[in-house]
Amino acid sequence: MSSTQDIDALIELMAKLPGLGPRSARRAVLHLIRKRSLLLMPLADTLRTVAETARECLNCGNVGTTDICDICTSEKRATGELCVVSDVADLWAMERSGVFKGRYHVLGGTLSALDAIGPEELRIPRLLDRIPSENITEVILALSATIDGLTTAHYIADQLEGQVRLTSLAQGVPVGGELDYLDDGTITAAMRARTTL
Amino acid sequence: MSSTQDIDALIELMAKLPGLGPRSARRAVLHLIRKRSLLLMPLADTLRTVAETARECLNCGNVGTTDICDICTSEKRATGELCVVSDVADLWAMERSGVFKGRYHVLGGTLSALDAIGPEELRIPRLLDRIPSENITEVILALSATIDGLTTAHYIADQLEGQVRLTSLAQGVPVGGELDYLDDGTITAAMRARTTL
Repeated sequence: MSSTQDIDALIELMAKLPGLGPRSARRAVLHLIRKRSLLLMPLADTLRTVAETARECLNCGNVGTTDICDICTSEKRATGELCVVSDVADLWAMERSGVFKGRYHVLGGTLSALDAIGPEELRIPRLLDRIPSENITEVILALSATIDGLTTAHYIADQLEGQVRLTSLAQGVPVGGELDYLDDGTITAAMRARTTL
Repeated sequence: MSSTQDIDALIELMAKLPGLGPRSARRAVLHLIRKRSLLLMPLADTLRTVAETARECLNCGNVGTTDICDICTSEKRATGELCVVSDVADLWAMERSGVFKGRYHVLGGTLSALDAIGPEELRIPRLLDRIPSENITEVILALSATIDGLTTAHYIADQLEGQVRLTSLAQGVPVGGELDYLDDGTITAAMRARTTL
């Protein structure tokens, strides 16, 4: 159907987004067409703006609209602490908690023998450069507690040994978590790292 | 953070799409930024085009890029049969099956006492107009088998009684459906409408 090919193309593009399949993409497109001025037009404009301005921070790999991101340029952030995350989504999660006041380093993934991702494929060389040049005293490894995440943490720890204080996020029972629903590994980790009241 | 406000605005807009929440919207936006030329740019362009061209067919309520949609203007479609659906998504589902060769009428919802949706809120008056003007001989009610869908079907059947042949989609076991997983109502309907082999 020639006159609907733009709509079909839109559905096809939307279906490529993570979390959306062909069916939910169709639903989303119908929703957009119904809310043309409230949602469709602003979304088209904002996408265009982001397409033109979004870029990775040359220093830390965070996503922003400037060559060096807000966090790297902010004078309010502690300069001695560097939090290493694998992904921008993890950086955003850390920022939502508001607990960390230092700067970040986004690796862009984790080491993976299966996917042939070595240190050079990640932002690890740049991390090693930053330690002396920014006078980093503590590197906090905030990587996922998966095999690949742990491998990456061990690799970085090896590289930085003796240069800085190395820490990683504590493992244990999530806040609000019910013991009954936790896996054995988490309970074991929480038991081993138990704290005195 | 001023320099990321466009990205934040994009996440907020994406989170308004059905099927996406704040978390999946963030994932989608990061995915878009990573695939700028492959996904982000084409999506922005296509959204802009659809925003400018998409409209409802004045005749049947289908979504297209012309005042009268392709199906209504096609000379290949049977003119005597009219399939009544509640939503454009239902029309698309019918078209994917390819089983129906007539034309459609999209009501734009179902009658609902709770939501105060009466015949005038739907495209029902236009449907009644189309029957004589397009020489419709059969109206197929392809409405959902919900309370509101059935109410709407009954209302339309009342209005059209004696004017045309009225049919509705058969109820029964879905193709590939396992009896064990079907609800009692469907099994009852399928049993009552059983066919001779």
